[in-house]
Amino acid sequence: MDFAKYRFVGQNPSLDQLQTLDDGGMSEKKLRKEREEVWEEVKDLQEVLYAESKQSLLIVLQAMDAAGKDSTIEKLTRNMNAQGCNVVSFKSPSKIELAHDFLWRVHQNAPRSGDITIFNRSHYEDVLIVKVHGWAETDIIDRRYDHINAFESLLADRGTRVVKFMLNISPEYQLSRFKRRLELQEKNWKFNPGDLEERKHWDDYMQAFETAIHRCASEDSPWYVVPAENRLFRDLMIGSVVRDTLKHMRCDYPTPEYDTSAYKADDLV
Amino acid sequence: MDFAKYRFVGQNPSLDQLQTLDDGGMSEKKLRKEREEVWEEVKDLQEVLYAESKQSLLIVLQAMDAAGKDSTIEKLTRNMNAQGCNVVSFKSPSKIELAHDFLWRVHQNAPRSGDITIFNRSHYEDVLIVKVHGWAETDIIDRRYDHINAFESLLADRGTRVVKFMLNISPEYQLSRFKRRLELQEKNWKFNPGDLEERKHWDDYMQAFETAIHRCASEDSPWYVVPAENRLFRDLMIGSVVRDTLKHMRCDYPTPEYDTSAYKADDLV
Repeated sequence: MDFAKYRFVGQNPSLDQLQTLDDGGMSEKKLRKEREEVWEEVKDLQEVLYAESKQSLLIVLQAMDAAGKDSTIEKLTRNMNAQGCNVVSFKSPSKIELAHDFLWRVHQNAPRSGDITIFNRSHYEDVLIVKVHGWAETDIIDRRYDHINAFESLLADRGTRVVKFMLNISPEYQLSRFKRRLELQEKNWKFNPGDLEERKHWDDYMQAFETAIHRCASEDSPWYVVPAENRLFRDLMIGSVVRDTLKHMRCDYPTPEYDTSAYKADDLV
Repeated sequence: MDFAKYRFVGQNPSLDQLQTLDDGGMSEKKLRKEREEVWEEVKDLQEVLYAESKQSLLIVLQAMDAAGKDSTIEKLTRNMNAQGCNVVSFKSPSKIELAHDFLWRVHQNAPRSGDITIFNRSHYEDVLIVKVHGWAETDIIDRRYDHINAFESLLADRGTRVVKFMLNISPEYQLSRFKRRLELQEKNWKFNPGDLEERKHWDDYMQAFETAIHRCASEDSPWYVVPAENRLFRDLMIGSVVRDTLKHMRCDYPTPEYDTSAYKADDLV
């Protein structure tokens, strides 16, 4: 399966021309099978990343409300070893966080060597929601794209690969998810009338996403726009990208720190 | 399955009289089946813990080298949602950490409301390895048990349950694991001759464990000594204790923040 058409490095993704629903021409059964296989591969690759402990992977997830970020994380991490995998959710910044530059809280959560860290929302909020609502001046926001690029290249130089996913859905799909939150009692607590206000700014959000994706990407730190309405395809695509990224990192088990040939198993006491 | 004989609150566990190998009288097939069922229950309970976001669970793992801490964590977290589950490994303290009291670095990693945090080693190292090697004076160590109890009761008052597991193995079993690290090439990097030195202090370690388990436990924060040589039983026991602990916490989905009856799904736009 080739996801190249959803990969962006330096282009404007023209979101209104991208599918939000895709099955890659595969049956549900086939999608499910491929997804399981990819997850198994990711599991094995993570083990070597962790053992090597020299490089790391940062996965950034951004999306409109109810696009499925939580469920994406649950699925993506299902086969991973929790030791060596961190999920960091960035909420509205606290007073202390606001008293610093916008990358301060993010930097503190950069993955440690050997780890996979998943950002549920990220520094990109500072060029998305902040831009849409005009919470910062235009030139301040404009400079943030460069700050983000400098920051992500700092990580790359230290051995951290960054992959960024935008879960792409249509406004109609979002509405159906909000309705579900009202209709299913156990989902009621997720319902927030504020989300209805936010969706009025849909077009502004899409523009802000396009600019961020256009301006903040490199070969070491590409953006993927994921058709997120078919969850099997979504999981397969994200899993595949993570697998391919880990493969490219060419991790290897570390050389034993000690000369193991000097020890014979039978002589141990 | 009743694990009461492996639970300690205020008693000396007399480690030399406890089994390190147990199958609970069950076949491998049965153990496997029960383990899967328990994991499913833990998964569901974690979801409510996370949704409620008022309480939290701290799982402490301690053991001799090669007892299977890493594999325990991998198995225990297999069905958990990584969002809401953190694993913290405590290694030899850094200079900055040593410049503070022994609970400083631990406190920073206490679980957030809604989360399950697993400590791979913990503050108990400061009354185990430190005691065995005499790296602190006897009266300093003696006061640490009280500090630990005060700290864990601080957590309990904030809604954090603490469960502590000692993975119990025999010295013979440990030796067989070390041999395996020499014999399997992909495990070579785990081999550390220093571990062979450490095992010479086996009896001192067992005494230190007994004192720690005896002095640092309460109903809110019990110790479990897990027969860890049968991994299916180990996983079933730990999973069951975690499940029962989560059940006792009686988490519930939060009351919706908004009056959802004021909204009709069909009216949403």
